[in-house]
Amino acid sequence: MSTVEVPINGERLIADLKRLREFGACGIGVVRTSLSPIDVESRHWLRGRFEEAGLDARIDGAGNVIGRSRNPGKAVLIGSHTDTQPTGGWLDGAMGVIYGLEVARALSEAPATKDRALDVASWLDEEGRFFGCFGSLSFVGETPAHALDALDTTDGTNLTLGDALHEAGLAGVAPERLDPNRHVAYLEAHIEQGPYLEEEGNRIGVVTSIVGARNFIVEFEGEQNHAGTTPMARRRDAAHAMVDFAHAVYREFPTAAGERSVWTIGEMTLEPNAMSIVPGKARLNLQFRDQDPTVLDRLEALSLDLLARANAGPCAATMRPRKHHSIPAPMDVNLRGHLERAAERHAPDQWTSMPSAAVHDAQILASHLPSAMLFVPSINGVSHAFEEDTSEEDIVLGCQVLATATASVLIATD
Amino acid sequence: MSTVEVPINGERLIADLKRLREFGACGIGVVRTSLSPIDVESRHWLRGRFEEAGLDARIDGAGNVIGRSRNPGKAVLIGSHTDTQPTGGWLDGAMGVIYGLEVARALSEAPATKDRALDVASWLDEEGRFFGCFGSLSFVGETPAHALDALDTTDGTNLTLGDALHEAGLAGVAPERLDPNRHVAYLEAHIEQGPYLEEEGNRIGVVTSIVGARNFIVEFEGEQNHAGTTPMARRRDAAHAMVDFAHAVYREFPTAAGERSVWTIGEMTLEPNAMSIVPGKARLNLQFRDQDPTVLDRLEALSLDLLARANAGPCAATMRPRKHHSIPAPMDVNLRGHLERAAERHAPDQWTSMPSAAVHDAQILASHLPSAMLFVPSINGVSHAFEEDTSEEDIVLGCQVLATATASVLIATD
Repeated sequence: MSTVEVPINGERLIADLKRLREFGACGIGVVRTSLSPIDVESRHWLRGRFEEAGLDARIDGAGNVIGRSRNPGKAVLIGSHTDTQPTGGWLDGAMGVIYGLEVARALSEAPATKDRALDVASWLDEEGRFFGCFGSLSFVGETPAHALDALDTTDGTNLTLGDALHEAGLAGVAPERLDPNRHVAYLEAHIEQGPYLEEEGNRIGVVTSIVGARNFIVEFEGEQNHAGTTPMARRRDAAHAMVDFAHAVYREFPTAAGERSVWTIGEMTLEPNAMSIVPGKARLNLQFRDQDPTVLDRLEALSLDLLARANAGPCAATMRPRKHHSIPAPMDVNLRGHLERAAERHAPDQWTSMPSAAVHDAQILASHLPSAMLFVPSINGVSHAFEEDTSEEDIVLGCQVLATATASVLIATD
Repeated sequence: MSTVEVPINGERLIADLKRLREFGACGIGVVRTSLSPIDVESRHWLRGRFEEAGLDARIDGAGNVIGRSRNPGKAVLIGSHTDTQPTGGWLDGAMGVIYGLEVARALSEAPATKDRALDVASWLDEEGRFFGCFGSLSFVGETPAHALDALDTTDGTNLTLGDALHEAGLAGVAPERLDPNRHVAYLEAHIEQGPYLEEEGNRIGVVTSIVGARNFIVEFEGEQNHAGTTPMARRRDAAHAMVDFAHAVYREFPTAAGERSVWTIGEMTLEPNAMSIVPGKARLNLQFRDQDPTVLDRLEALSLDLLARANAGPCAATMRPRKHHSIPAPMDVNLRGHLERAAERHAPDQWTSMPSAAVHDAQILASHLPSAMLFVPSINGVSHAFEEDTSEEDIVLGCQVLATATASVLIATD
């Protein structure tokens, strides 16, 4: 293996992360949903930082911020996302993008790698304010025709993705595309967002595969009526039907799930949601994830079965996919080897191999390019919440591992 | 009993009801929540109609529209409310106010009653956008100190009642008050909002008593986290805790309820309500109603018991009253007699006595003044929904019964 030295600058890395945190800062958390005014502002800042690092940078028509190395030859691509959940933490996604920026600077400063090509990307809307992983889907040419009509699903503003891109001044701007003659590998670093690294005393995780996720909108339609005057026997209460279904999900899913399966009802909505009205409509989002497609199939079949039984009540019920299913994605074995060797060099005996239970843009890239991922620990396993955090030592270590691995991939492509 | 003739003008009545319907019309329904711009506009129109009917009319500091007869002597007060639910029907409340307007005109046109005093009121916010029955509470001097700080609970605008009154130009305007030397009786007419009159072929209901209602906010606090990476065993899922509690309510309440008890979970909210986040907080509104305070006590005790059992899970749960409990209110026997005789005269064998399962301003007035209520049928029992309706024949009949009863009350006060 290569023993090339590519020292990163930890202080510079942390300073950029903290600067990015200021865009949308909300207490200790960050609110920077895709294409919100503060997100757009942060994208212009990021483009400037890419330029200062010597990259040829632009914001493309999909909202991606992409910095391309000015060096010729085969290139490694490092990416992640700088958009956040409606109440997000400061590291999720952002850390992986700033890692890319710092690795680009470190490569350009090291004699052995200064002529090598590294491209860096911040993909739009990984978190799915409009359409999850829209930016990386655009980059690989897989955005479906209706994607620009996707409505905001988190802020309830009824804004479409197309309108939001227009407001950001990006309508008509050409998208950047994956270049098969240039790009040889995709690397992404991320916080683990789970408890396993911390619990087992590890500081680096090399991802073996990314889970698949399925999201369904389940809707119940009854009859809206007065909550005082409608006798219980005459009611068609959509909330009651929804609660019965949700209760059955919580009760039955453990019997059909795999060891690492997770299932979540993260959204519930009643209409009209008023204390003195029997709800006429109710809706929830049912999500489940597993690495094994047969487990996903089993959970989907169980959901339909539970819904058919809930249908026996006086309300009508329907279930439909929320968006494209994310398919389980195994990571590239060769790239994993580069990451493992770099981890062993900088964190001997303090790294492990592990699956990713979260969706990442790497899932999209993995169908088109050898791809791999690196995790750093999440304190208490918390993420998608203001409290999300990782120690600065672990943040710096993760970036050093990524820089060393990137250099060794580039040198191995000779 | 009096056999005085006080003929109402049905066409005039229906025309005014249809004019009022235009304020906030939304398809066949009406959206005219308290102190919304269109509600304020409708109050100015109503004040003008009161004036044209010969009343001395004003909008008071509580947002009530009050028309006082210019005749001296003891007065009957007729009232209801013109605000609507977020998605309301055209008759709920509005009908009772326009009845008052038409009865005032009919009394002034009939020789036997033209010198009698009838006051008419549209009470603010019976539906509780901010603070249920605020207008009638103000009229009897019972508004609690914090009422003006009450936040909008339906539109989610975070507006306070005080701010909304200010925006309507009513800050600092004096409130009208009940005058014990003048007011001798309170009458209110309303659509039934339930199915009983229609089912039994009756056209008039004379209310025996109004149910009590209790509203509780039940909150569950867990831990917000990532829906992919947080293992099931580590979750403190507030939605799961809320669903378990709601399911127990639906299952257990029938065992403790009275024959006509009703219970409703009309509101549910998750935070942050995003598909890929384990909810950290969940909240529901639990409401139950009955005429018998001991049944209400029993249901409240059961709720606390179910919650204590739900507390065994990993989330914290709390239950607190949403607002003042409305207390079951028996109607005045003497006034009921006036209404019954008028009903028998205009709708022989087509009327009945019945409880009110809905909250009404009459509940507030009843503690201070002999009070009674009249119902007309609701088609299919529907209300608090756009489809709410009553046949024009029944609307006109109800107003005639109210006019005759009002006249007989006034003459009996001699």
